[in-house]
Amino acid sequence: MMTNTDLVQQIEKPTLLLDRTRVLANIHRMVDKANRGGVRLRPHFKTHQSAIIGEWFREQGVSAITVSSVDMADYFARHNWQDITIAFPVNLRQTQAINNLARQVRLNLLFESAGVVAKLDTYLKAKVGAWLKIDTGYQRSGIDWNNLNLIGEVVTAIQGSRWLEFQGLLTHAGHTYTTASPEEVINIYQDTESRLRRVQHYLRGEGVNAAISVGDTPGCSLATDLGAVDEIRPGNFVFFDLSQLEIGSCRERDIAVALACPIVAKHPERKQLVIYGGAVHLSKESLRDKQGSAYFGRVSLLSEDGWSLFSQASRVVSLSQEHGLITADTEIFDSVAVGDVVAIIPVHSCLTANLMGRYLSLDGEQIDMAKY
Amino acid sequence: MMTNTDLVQQIEKPTLLLDRTRVLANIHRMVDKANRGGVRLRPHFKTHQSAIIGEWFREQGVSAITVSSVDMADYFARHNWQDITIAFPVNLRQTQAINNLARQVRLNLLFESAGVVAKLDTYLKAKVGAWLKIDTGYQRSGIDWNNLNLIGEVVTAIQGSRWLEFQGLLTHAGHTYTTASPEEVINIYQDTESRLRRVQHYLRGEGVNAAISVGDTPGCSLATDLGAVDEIRPGNFVFFDLSQLEIGSCRERDIAVALACPIVAKHPERKQLVIYGGAVHLSKESLRDKQGSAYFGRVSLLSEDGWSLFSQASRVVSLSQEHGLITADTEIFDSVAVGDVVAIIPVHSCLTANLMGRYLSLDGEQIDMAKY
Repeated sequence: MMTNTDLVQQIEKPTLLLDRTRVLANIHRMVDKANRGGVRLRPHFKTHQSAIIGEWFREQGVSAITVSSVDMADYFARHNWQDITIAFPVNLRQTQAINNLARQVRLNLLFESAGVVAKLDTYLKAKVGAWLKIDTGYQRSGIDWNNLNLIGEVVTAIQGSRWLEFQGLLTHAGHTYTTASPEEVINIYQDTESRLRRVQHYLRGEGVNAAISVGDTPGCSLATDLGAVDEIRPGNFVFFDLSQLEIGSCRERDIAVALACPIVAKHPERKQLVIYGGAVHLSKESLRDKQGSAYFGRVSLLSEDGWSLFSQASRVVSLSQEHGLITADTEIFDSVAVGDVVAIIPVHSCLTANLMGRYLSLDGEQIDMAKY
Repeated sequence: MMTNTDLVQQIEKPTLLLDRTRVLANIHRMVDKANRGGVRLRPHFKTHQSAIIGEWFREQGVSAITVSSVDMADYFARHNWQDITIAFPVNLRQTQAINNLARQVRLNLLFESAGVVAKLDTYLKAKVGAWLKIDTGYQRSGIDWNNLNLIGEVVTAIQGSRWLEFQGLLTHAGHTYTTASPEEVINIYQDTESRLRRVQHYLRGEGVNAAISVGDTPGCSLATDLGAVDEIRPGNFVFFDLSQLEIGSCRERDIAVALACPIVAKHPERKQLVIYGGAVHLSKESLRDKQGSAYFGRVSLLSEDGWSLFSQASRVVSLSQEHGLITADTEIFDSVAVGDVVAIIPVHSCLTANLMGRYLSLDGEQIDMAKY
């Protein structure tokens, strides 16, 4: 373990700190939950996008993963992942890259129309697992779970294709992100499962066996019973963030990344700090406080073993391209000088990690991410 | 000129299209305005971050530039820019990189405290131009323009340093971005100028000559008279975007970048299109429509010479990491199929460009950006 002094001395500009102990504990907790539930954990790697962090999952027994793009699948395939689901509607403009992948790994794709099944099948030259994307209420993509006619039609198209092998029903209940309480998250998780089971039951009546795959960090973190699903695909849980803390999916001490930012100016008359750390580092994802004001991160101080619990009253209140503006409580304001570093807890760790492109672990390792 | 068909065939995934004709016209308009006003144009290169696009400015007579980070200064110094202002409060954690730059180019830095002047001076080993960062009302960084004591104190510190050469007063009137009308923007521009001239007059009484540098795209685009300033530093005008269109700084046909996105699903029952194009491509910068709903881009079709005027009623209404969800009018919805490409006009072109990392010009050139 480096001392805090060694670590702080390395930080010249916005740097995404990673607490390896917390990451490993977050992975362990989800692996353990999946094992106890008899469910396959196929974690979503879009959050970390790092082959090194991928290995930490592998060491805990994970062998199947989820990604959100063909490029990301390609990156992890090159890092020896052999079972990859691209949890995104098939992009018909990347058929060549899809074929290249399908030849190398066990590839799973998502479908929601018979037309796309037919078109892709004319391009494919290797077997691909096919999941039906079902919409259980989020209303982003997928076939409405009530639309059994369309579900049947697309399953028939998959069964009639040369290269696709039907796997089952997959959903992302992203509406758990806008809930007001953990109970509401658990209700959505249970509704999602029961809706998919109704579709599964319908297909069984048609002589078709369908597995069930669900996955969102709030649902998978908060559900005490994962229910009769075959697979879960949470991603954000590896790091968590302020959004998950607000939902109730994690405790503050589970949040495993923080953006270290140099202080470049102090404004005593308005108790504000200007940091080097802006929209190109944190992203413009925001939360709203009780007064309805947007904020873009919370503020911690670096401590001997990482970063402290965040200040309740200090917030990143605005972001320009490279500047962040913090409204600080007196304790934080008085304890820092220009040239010091503060740690910003991000609102949405996936977007912050994607922007930063690398991590610095508290024990001093530079951890690279995919470059596309 | 490529035909539209050639161009569209290249697009497999989210691709930032660039209309070179519009970019050149945007540059020309600002160069011409600065020349007519007898003002130096020192454009902010944070918007495009590209050495190739930098050359387009050079060909129109620009020789001095603005950047927002030490890394960006280093990138453009390596591409033969010899006069660079880092329009960001000095980051005391990058003194080595600052020294390396100061040895190679005419470097200008921003100061707002005597303490930072004194500290930096102990590290410097080459001459650096020093601008006082003045806050004329934006309240992000800089010394309040009324605080003549502090202004005098920092100027004295700069004059007493070994390496710093005092240049003048610099401000960014970023509050033009939240205005309701072009008249309000022009008023802010004029107030900014007159406030800086009062400070300039005060310093002249103390025997100190100070130049004046202002710069924000709304002010510099809308002011009919640039006034008695020495330098302007707008950046976004090279591309413009929906934010600038809303403010009134540009016409729709001046917007020079659009994100081409494959359509991956259609939902007729809610007239929605799912595109491959999310928060990691567009950024989560949003505007609000008259009903108060946030949107993340407007929707155009690709046309023979680029992209069409955007649909008034079609919007990107939500973004996940890689997904975008468009609510489309009937004309747009009916004219596209899964596998086609639509063009999204971004809310904030600087952030979209930063995320995308490269451009594809309509005439088929891949245009790279800085990689840090």
